[in-house]
Amino acid sequence: MVRVSKDPELRRKEFIEVATELFNEKGFDNTSVSDITNKVGLSHGSFFYYFKSKKEIMKEVIFDGLNEIRYSIRQIVDNKQMNAIEKFQTILKWSADVQDTHEEFVEYSHRESNAAMHREYTLRSREMLLPLFVEIIEQGIKEGTFNVEYPTETMEYLTYIFENMEDSIKSSKTEEEYYQKMCALDILIIKALGIPEDTRLLGYYLKPNLKFE
Amino acid sequence: MVRVSKDPELRRKEFIEVATELFNEKGFDNTSVSDITNKVGLSHGSFFYYFKSKKEIMKEVIFDGLNEIRYSIRQIVDNKQMNAIEKFQTILKWSADVQDTHEEFVEYSHRESNAAMHREYTLRSREMLLPLFVEIIEQGIKEGTFNVEYPTETMEYLTYIFENMEDSIKSSKTEEEYYQKMCALDILIIKALGIPEDTRLLGYYLKPNLKFE
Repeated sequence: MVRVSKDPELRRKEFIEVATELFNEKGFDNTSVSDITNKVGLSHGSFFYYFKSKKEIMKEVIFDGLNEIRYSIRQIVDNKQMNAIEKFQTILKWSADVQDTHEEFVEYSHRESNAAMHREYTLRSREMLLPLFVEIIEQGIKEGTFNVEYPTETMEYLTYIFENMEDSIKSSKTEEEYYQKMCALDILIIKALGIPEDTRLLGYYLKPNLKFE
Repeated sequence: MVRVSKDPELRRKEFIEVATELFNEKGFDNTSVSDITNKVGLSHGSFFYYFKSKKEIMKEVIFDGLNEIRYSIRQIVDNKQMNAIEKFQTILKWSADVQDTHEEFVEYSHRESNAAMHREYTLRSREMLLPLFVEIIEQGIKEGTFNVEYPTETMEYLTYIFENMEDSIKSSKTEEEYYQKMCALDILIIKALGIPEDTRLLGYYLKPNLKFE
């Protein structure tokens, strides 16, 4: 029997925090259960009192991260002062800023050795974040600025683009190429959601952080 | 020194064929170099006369498969009798039929243990197939039936949707849900490429092969 000196819920949280740090540092595949228990200062076996497997704690790490993101987006969705277009613009700007400051995490989650973790992240984020975007689209339809027959399905398809474009955008070799990719994306979103064609959702992106040769 | 009794190019092809079969049967991760050499009937070391690693032969397997697909699509692109919309419809129908007959392969390439192979497939297919679709869009622009400012970038974004929608479509629980997803996709493609709104690209899909409860 494992000695439980701390409140189990607190101990569980501690494991998740430590695992988050280690996965970020070393990658999911290269982190062992012993790495986690060593850092927490408990025996190897104690881990299995709280989690079935490394995969289970990975799922918790991802759930916690996404929960924070969901909370931030929820604040914007619930803001009574903004119209639907402004909400979309604000979230896109916010997520670009987050990606800039968490560039290492984005890079890391795309590494091949973290493929399983990346897939889990992708599937869970669709589940947890998609409904928030659908709420904004429905607000936009009421306001008469969005015109889209299948909000949920269309937004799901757009998330496939967001999930994959990062690599493509980063591979831009010139500022012009980058600019074209951003404009093409802006136009595609606007057409898909039936937003007035002179709207620009991604304007902030046009001063990229990227270095071109 | 390895004894080379066969033309090296033929031997190389034999290795690729055998590897294709084994990857399909057992998955990439579960196939060893020895599995391949055993089936070819040569020593373990002979493999490395032709390939640097299992990863290298995997890349060849994928290249060969994509090359066949490219050849089939090329026939459609070069057909002088079809307009751009007909070419799009034909390719989409053809690829749905291929997916139906190769359902096992599609299922298999999505399995977690084949993540590395799936990623290679995705990246190479963008490189090898995207230009063919851009040719059709350019034909459509000349014919006045397509209206899209950034053909290459827009088509790239649409492929992200094609690559990811399979899972989503398959997870449909009712025929209505399936139908809505297909309609939403049809409308999104049409809007993105500026095709007349009464066009239907995916009509054939509406008699699904899927079983609903």
